[in-house]
Amino acid sequence: MSADQMSYAPSAAAGKQIPAHPLCPVTAAEIKQSAHLIRSLYPANTDFAFKVITLEEPEKAHLVPYLDAEHSRGRLPQIDRKTFVCYYLRNTDKFHEAIVNLSQQRVESNVRLGPNVHGPGDWEEILLVEKIALEDEGVKAEIAKLGLPEGTAVISDPWIYGSDGINDDRRMYQCFLYMRDPNDPSNMDSNHYAFPLAISPVVDCVDLKVIRIDMCPTGADHATKEAQALWVPPPNEYTPEHQKLRTDLKPLNVVQPEGTSFKVTKVGETGQIIEWQKWSFRVGYNQREGVVLYDVRYAGRSLFYRLALSDMNIPYADPRAPFHKKAAFDLGDAGAGAMANNLKLGCDCLGSIHYLSAVLATAHGEPMPMENVVCVHEQDAGIGWKHTNYRTGRAAVVRSRELVVQSIITVANYEYIMAFMFNQAGEMTYEVRATGIISTQPIDEGVEVPWGTIVHPGVLAVHHQHIFSLRVDPAIDGHANRLVYDEIHPMPVSAFNPHGVGYTVSETTVPESAGLDTDYDAARTFKVLNAASRNPVNGKAVGYRIHVPGFQKMLAHPDSFHHKRAEFADHNVYVTRYRDGELYAGGRYTNQSRGGAGVRAWAARRDAVVDADIVLWLQFGLQHVTRAEDFPVMPCEVIRVSLKPVNFFPANPALDVPPSTQAFNRSTLVAERHRQPAVEGRVGEDGAVCCSSKL
Amino acid sequence: MSADQMSYAPSAAAGKQIPAHPLCPVTAAEIKQSAHLIRSLYPANTDFAFKVITLEEPEKAHLVPYLDAEHSRGRLPQIDRKTFVCYYLRNTDKFHEAIVNLSQQRVESNVRLGPNVHGPGDWEEILLVEKIALEDEGVKAEIAKLGLPEGTAVISDPWIYGSDGINDDRRMYQCFLYMRDPNDPSNMDSNHYAFPLAISPVVDCVDLKVIRIDMCPTGADHATKEAQALWVPPPNEYTPEHQKLRTDLKPLNVVQPEGTSFKVTKVGETGQIIEWQKWSFRVGYNQREGVVLYDVRYAGRSLFYRLALSDMNIPYADPRAPFHKKAAFDLGDAGAGAMANNLKLGCDCLGSIHYLSAVLATAHGEPMPMENVVCVHEQDAGIGWKHTNYRTGRAAVVRSRELVVQSIITVANYEYIMAFMFNQAGEMTYEVRATGIISTQPIDEGVEVPWGTIVHPGVLAVHHQHIFSLRVDPAIDGHANRLVYDEIHPMPVSAFNPHGVGYTVSETTVPESAGLDTDYDAARTFKVLNAASRNPVNGKAVGYRIHVPGFQKMLAHPDSFHHKRAEFADHNVYVTRYRDGELYAGGRYTNQSRGGAGVRAWAARRDAVVDADIVLWLQFGLQHVTRAEDFPVMPCEVIRVSLKPVNFFPANPALDVPPSTQAFNRSTLVAERHRQPAVEGRVGEDGAVCCSSKL
Repeated sequence: MSADQMSYAPSAAAGKQIPAHPLCPVTAAEIKQSAHLIRSLYPANTDFAFKVITLEEPEKAHLVPYLDAEHSRGRLPQIDRKTFVCYYLRNTDKFHEAIVNLSQQRVESNVRLGPNVHGPGDWEEILLVEKIALEDEGVKAEIAKLGLPEGTAVISDPWIYGSDGINDDRRMYQCFLYMRDPNDPSNMDSNHYAFPLAISPVVDCVDLKVIRIDMCPTGADHATKEAQALWVPPPNEYTPEHQKLRTDLKPLNVVQPEGTSFKVTKVGETGQIIEWQKWSFRVGYNQREGVVLYDVRYAGRSLFYRLALSDMNIPYADPRAPFHKKAAFDLGDAGAGAMANNLKLGCDCLGSIHYLSAVLATAHGEPMPMENVVCVHEQDAGIGWKHTNYRTGRAAVVRSRELVVQSIITVANYEYIMAFMFNQAGEMTYEVRATGIISTQPIDEGVEVPWGTIVHPGVLAVHHQHIFSLRVDPAIDGHANRLVYDEIHPMPVSAFNPHGVGYTVSETTVPESAGLDTDYDAARTFKVLNAASRNPVNGKAVGYRIHVPGFQKMLAHPDSFHHKRAEFADHNVYVTRYRDGELYAGGRYTNQSRGGAGVRAWAARRDAVVDADIVLWLQFGLQHVTRAEDFPVMPCEVIRVSLKPVNFFPANPALDVPPSTQAFNRSTLVAERHRQPAVEGRVGEDGAVCCSSKL
Repeated sequence: MSADQMSYAPSAAAGKQIPAHPLCPVTAAEIKQSAHLIRSLYPANTDFAFKVITLEEPEKAHLVPYLDAEHSRGRLPQIDRKTFVCYYLRNTDKFHEAIVNLSQQRVESNVRLGPNVHGPGDWEEILLVEKIALEDEGVKAEIAKLGLPEGTAVISDPWIYGSDGINDDRRMYQCFLYMRDPNDPSNMDSNHYAFPLAISPVVDCVDLKVIRIDMCPTGADHATKEAQALWVPPPNEYTPEHQKLRTDLKPLNVVQPEGTSFKVTKVGETGQIIEWQKWSFRVGYNQREGVVLYDVRYAGRSLFYRLALSDMNIPYADPRAPFHKKAAFDLGDAGAGAMANNLKLGCDCLGSIHYLSAVLATAHGEPMPMENVVCVHEQDAGIGWKHTNYRTGRAAVVRSRELVVQSIITVANYEYIMAFMFNQAGEMTYEVRATGIISTQPIDEGVEVPWGTIVHPGVLAVHHQHIFSLRVDPAIDGHANRLVYDEIHPMPVSAFNPHGVGYTVSETTVPESAGLDTDYDAARTFKVLNAASRNPVNGKAVGYRIHVPGFQKMLAHPDSFHHKRAEFADHNVYVTRYRDGELYAGGRYTNQSRGGAGVRAWAARRDAVVDADIVLWLQFGLQHVTRAEDFPVMPCEVIRVSLKPVNFFPANPALDVPPSTQAFNRSTLVAERHRQPAVEGRVGEDGAVCCSSKL
C-alpha cells in the first residue's frame, strides 16, 4: 500500500471531518462532534460524564473489501465513519452506550445499560474519589487515632471495587490508604507504599461520599482492630536522591548514523502506517487497548487483520475482606490507552526514536492530547543466524534487527511496558515487562502468612497472578484460517521402531470454538494455518506457530467471582469464530462485572472454526510470588509470546539480510587491560530523574 | 578479591611453570609438560593420540580453603597443580586416562579404560575419517553409480557412531555423504546439505578403513535401494552472493564513548578475572565445556562455586538404520571448547568487545592456540525498572545493562551461540541460540514421513530434540545449601476463604539426591537456599530462584540406548551431593557410551542434600519440529535459563543504578516524516561475508 493512495479520503460520504482511512483513530474534532451529537439527545442543562469516545471500527464485512480494494488499487467502497460512546448522566447510575454515525451526523443507537453494568474509571473520577475519601470526617477521625506526626500526608489509592456479590450492585471504589514518610513531609515522591494503613474507605460513585469504612486485617486471620497509635517504620524510597548511586556504569549509546530503517507515514490527523523490513501495518490507539495494529503484512502477504492486548486480570491471594475483591482488569477498568506514560527521549527508549501521539476524550467530551504515548525504534537482537563452513573456515553471519512499538502504562502503583516486536525472520513477538511498585498492605510485627511476603517492616506484599490475553485476529494469506495443534508422541517399540528411539508429530484440527491448553509432556503446540495456501517446497498448509510460555491458570475457584469475571484466565488458548464487537476477552465492561460476557461465553457457542474467520486469544501470565527484591520498585519481569512462520515461507526469510560486517557494525576492540578511569558523581549526582512531567 | 593479590603465585610448590592461581586453565607449557610426562612412561617410539589435556581442577576440600583465604587476605594454602590427560596409543583401541601432577613432575595415575569406553573425536581424526571414507574404493564405486556430473565434489560428514548394541563395541564413525552443487563445482561454500546422498560408510578408528557401507532408506519405510543415477535438485545456498540482499537496512552501532564498565584482569598466562557492576568471577576454558565460570560473587557475597554447560544431547526421531543412532553429545563427543569459533570484530558481537583467547592441546600433545573464542561485552536490555508517581508526574526509570560472556561453536552442520549474561538486579541468565544448518537426509519424491519435514526437493530434515544440562554448583552465602520447591495451591473454600479466591505458597525441601520436574499446574518452582543465612527484612532463608522454561523430556524409550546414555534428559532438575570429578551430566565419556556413568546414576545414591554441598543440574530444551524456514540456515531459536535472587537482598539490588537520562543515553529524535534516502548496494554488494578465517 502506498501513502499516496492511503491519503485520499473515501469519496462518497466525505465531509471535512472524515479522516483519510476507516481505521484512523478518532480525531479531536470527531470527539467533540460525537459528544455534541449525544448532548443533542438530552435537555440543554444535562451534565454528562463521558467514559469513552472512540472509533467504532467498521464491520469486518465492510472493511475487508475496503482493504482488498486498497491493496489491489481498486475503487474503495464507502464506509460510514462511526464512534462508540459510553457515558453516565453525571452523578447518576444511568450508564449508556451509543453508536454515533458521523458520516450521517446522527446517533444510530443509544441504550441505557445495566443493572450491574458499570463504566470504567477515569482520571477525573479517580482524583475526585481520592479527595472524597480523605476529606470524609469519619475517615479523618480514624486517621486521627493513628497519632501520626503533624504534617504527615495521607494518600488514598482508589481501587476498582471488584465483585463479591455482597451489596455490590452500586458503583463504588475501595480506597486503600497509605502515608508519605512522616519524617520527610516535604518529599512529594516519598514511596507511600512503604507505609500502608489499615483504614479502607468505600466511596459511592453516585452519592459521591464515603458509605463505609473497612478496617483491614493485619494479623494472620480475619480479625481487624480499632485504629490505634502507629509505630512508624523507616522509609523505603526508590527515587535516586535517596540512593548511593553506582558510579561505575559507562554510557552505552545506540547510534544510527544514516537514520532508521523504518518509515512512518501519517494518514490524516491520527493514522499511521509503519513500514520496516518487508513488514507493514497500521497503528491505531484507543482508550482501552492502547496500541492496536491493523492489516499486518509481510512482503505484501496478509498475516493479521488485527492485533492488540485484549485484557489482563490480576487476582490477589489474600482471602480476607476487603482484600478478597482485589482482581484488577487494568484495561477494562482503567484503560491501557488512558493510563499511558508520556515517553521521554533518552529515558524510556534507547537509540533513534519516533514517537506517536494520540488523542482521547475527557470526561467532559473534550479531546485530551496524549503526547508521545508510543515509541517506535529499532534494536539489535543479537545474532540472527550463523553458519561456519569448517572446511573453508568461511562464516556467514547476520545480526537480527527488531522493530519495537512500545508503550508504558502506570496503573496506580504498577507499571507495564508493552511492546510489539517484529524481526527479519518474519516473527512477531509481544512482550510485557511488569515493573513498578507491588501492592502493599499492613501486617503486624511477628506475623507471617502463606499468601504474601514481608518486604519492609510492617509491610506485606500479597502474592498475585498476572494473566494477560492477547487477541490475534489472523488473516494468514486470507481470512479462512484454522487452528491446529501438533503433538509429539513416541512410536511404540516394534519391528518398525526396534531401538525405541522413533517419534512422530501429529496434527489435530480444532473443530469448534473452545478453550484449549498446552501440554509440555506432549509438546502440544498451536498453529494457525491456511489450508488453501500451500508451501511450494513441501506442500504443507502455510501458517504461523504460537509460542506461549507455560503458566499456572487462575487459582480462584470456578464458582468464585474472580473466575467468572476473568473469562480468559482458565485456558492457554481460546479460539472463537469472528463476530463484530467481540474484542475484549473479559467482556466490554469489566468494572464490578459478573462474568458471562467474554470469551468463555463466546467459545461456548461451539461455532465451526475450520477454514473460517477465526479469532485467537492467547493467554500468558506471571505467578508473582513476592520477594524482598520486588520492593520498593521491582526489577522488570519479562514475558513474551511469539508467532513464528511455519512453512509460510519457502526458506529462511532472513536469508537476504546483509551479512554482519565490521564496516557496517563498527564495533570497538577493548584494549586487553582496559583502564577504567574513575568517573564519580557524573551520573545522577544531583538526584535528578529523567522524566518529570504530568501524565 | 584484588588483581594484585591474585597475581602472586602459591609460594610453596611454585616452580616457574606454576600459574598464578589454581583455577587458571592449563598453559601451553603445561600441555607440553603433561604430554612429556605421559610419553616418559612408554618406550621412546610410542605414538600417541592425545584426546584431552586439561586442568584437573583441585579437589574442593582444598580449593575452598584457598578461596576463603584469598577473600579474607589470609595465607594461601599450597595446592598441587595437576592436569587431566586422556589419550590413545595411536591406531589402537588402548584408551587411557591419567592425572599428571605438575607440581611434583610425575604421573599420579595412568589407567587403561574400557571396554566400551571411548574418547571423543578431535579435529585431526575427523579430517582423517572424512578422507578415509571418500578414498575408499567401495565408496567410490557406490558414488559412481549416481552418475554425477564430472567435477562434482562429494562431502563426507563423519558422525559420532552412537550406540545400538549391535556390533558397536569398536570405535567407529558413521559418515553421511553429500555433494556440493554439481552445477557450480568451484563454489567451495556450496551448501552440501541441500544434496544429501543415501550412501553412508562406516569407518573403523583402529584399522582406519571403511568396514561397512550402509545404504540409507529414502522412502517411508526401512527399505533401502541400490545406488542409482540421481536427479539433481536445484541448489539452496546461504552465502550472501547467492541472495538478492535487502538494501534498506541502516547501520545500528553501539558506542561506548567512555569505554566499558567491566574490567578484565589477566591472572598469569591463562587466567582471567572479570569484574562488572558488583559481579566478579574467574573465567576458565577447556576442551569439553568451553567457558567455565568460577567463584561467582555479587558485591563480595558468594553465589556460585562453578557454572558451566555440562552436557547436551540431540536425539533424532527417525527410527530407521543408520539414522536411529543419531544422538549427538556435542560436548562429550566433540567438545564445546574445541569446536569454538574464532570470533570476528563487528561480526559476532556488537559494541565494545573484549576477546578472550585460550589454549587447548592437539592430538600430538602440542598447544593449540584458540584465538578470540570468547567475547565479553555489555548490552542494553531495555528498561530495568520504572515507576511514575501519577500524582506528581515524576517518573523514575533505569535501563538494564547486561554483561555478556559469549562463545559460538560449530559442530559440523550446526551452531550454538552460548552466553552467560549478568544484570544489575543480581540475575544470571544462561542463553543458548540454536542456529546453523539442520541435519538432512535424502527422501524420495512424493514421500512424506511423520518424523520430519521436507525442506528442499528430495531433502528431509528429521525432527529432533535439543536437551541441554547446565551444571550449577551453588555457594549461596556459603557451601551448605538446599534445594526446595515452591508450589501454589488454592485454599479450600471455607469460612476462612469464603469467596474461593485465596491461595497459598508452600515450600518443600528436597531431602535426597533426585531427579525432579516442574509442574505448571502447581506453579512448582525450584529455589536454592542457604537456611543459615537470613534476609534482614523478612527472616527468610536467602536464595536464588531457578527459572527454566518447560520442555518435553526425552522421547526415546526408557530401555533405549538414547535414554540410557542421556542420563540428564528425563528430568527438569537433578540435585546431587557434590563429589569431585562429577562434572558432566552424561558421564565423562559419551562417545558410544552405554549409560550408567552420569547424573542419573549419581542421583541414585540418594545422598542427603539438605544444607549440604550440593550440585544442581538444570535441563532445558528445544523440541525442533523442522519447517521450511529452517533451511538452508535456520533463524536462531533462543532459549534461556535464569537464576534470580529470592530474598537474597533486602531490596531491589538495581535500586542504585543511575537513572536513565538523555544526557547519559543520547537518544535521537527521528523527524516526524523521516526521509529514507535510497542507499542501494552499500551493504554486502560484493557478496563478501564477514569472517573468513580458518577455524
